[in-house]
Amino acid sequence: MLTRIDHVGIACVDLDASIAFYRRTYGFEVAHEEVNEEQGVREAMLRVNGTDDGGATYLQLLEPTRDDSPVAKFLARHGEGVHHIAFGTADVAGAAEEVGGRGVRVLDPAPRHGSMDSRIVFLHPKDCGGVLTELVQAADQGGGRGEG
Amino acid sequence: MLTRIDHVGIACVDLDASIAFYRRTYGFEVAHEEVNEEQGVREAMLRVNGTDDGGATYLQLLEPTRDDSPVAKFLARHGEGVHHIAFGTADVAGAAEEVGGRGVRVLDPAPRHGSMDSRIVFLHPKDCGGVLTELVQAADQGGGRGEG
Repeated sequence: MLTRIDHVGIACVDLDASIAFYRRTYGFEVAHEEVNEEQGVREAMLRVNGTDDGGATYLQLLEPTRDDSPVAKFLARHGEGVHHIAFGTADVAGAAEEVGGRGVRVLDPAPRHGSMDSRIVFLHPKDCGGVLTELVQAADQGGGRGEG
Repeated sequence: MLTRIDHVGIACVDLDASIAFYRRTYGFEVAHEEVNEEQGVREAMLRVNGTDDGGATYLQLLEPTRDDSPVAKFLARHGEGVHHIAFGTADVAGAAEEVGGRGVRVLDPAPRHGSMDSRIVFLHPKDCGGVLTELVQAADQGGGRGEG
């Protein structure tokens, strides 16, 4: 059902500074950058490796664009650090239904738009051992706004 | 230098319950389980996917074995959740030296024993945007106690 760690989401106060840190320190490069107004974040995807399901694993750096966004609230409470982990799947709607049937609250009633035209749902961290967990279907796995 | 996300370390209060959650909810299976007395943890590695450097990405579930271990202190402060992320490398000593030369404090003066006979160092989270970061060389990349 879930075939890779798609990304680790990291909350930061200054996206450009975080990008510079990861490039300078480890040599990771930005594969994609976008603003997600719905989630109130400016974000960058740094590709770390390819995965054996034909996808890839990224670091996702997240800077809030407004004070009432979930990432801004996370930063106010916890400071910078890991915000969530995301598992990749070829069928996010099906995976959400399966996981929901196993007693985990799915926070999105239907998949919504994520990074790089993916489709995503979030799971309730209290049902996932304190880990804010995302399920993601990449655009080349049938994701994208067109389907949503 | 760093060629994969090797694992995401997750602190939990009850390893068996966490293993059961990840198996029941997502179908992830335990690839390896061990006690690391030095770090004061009982841990399980759940393999999620293979990576294009010939390695794999795991979830690492960590239960403290004593109250003064770093993971016990993390749980007391933050509760359950993501504890650290680990990047895989073919040369952990070389990577630690490079990263140290770029102004990041390396917490271990020499690589020490990690999961599955890997060799690891930790980096200071304050130098890594709030992310406790580990560098890991797998046993089949020349890791293992024999070299250490």
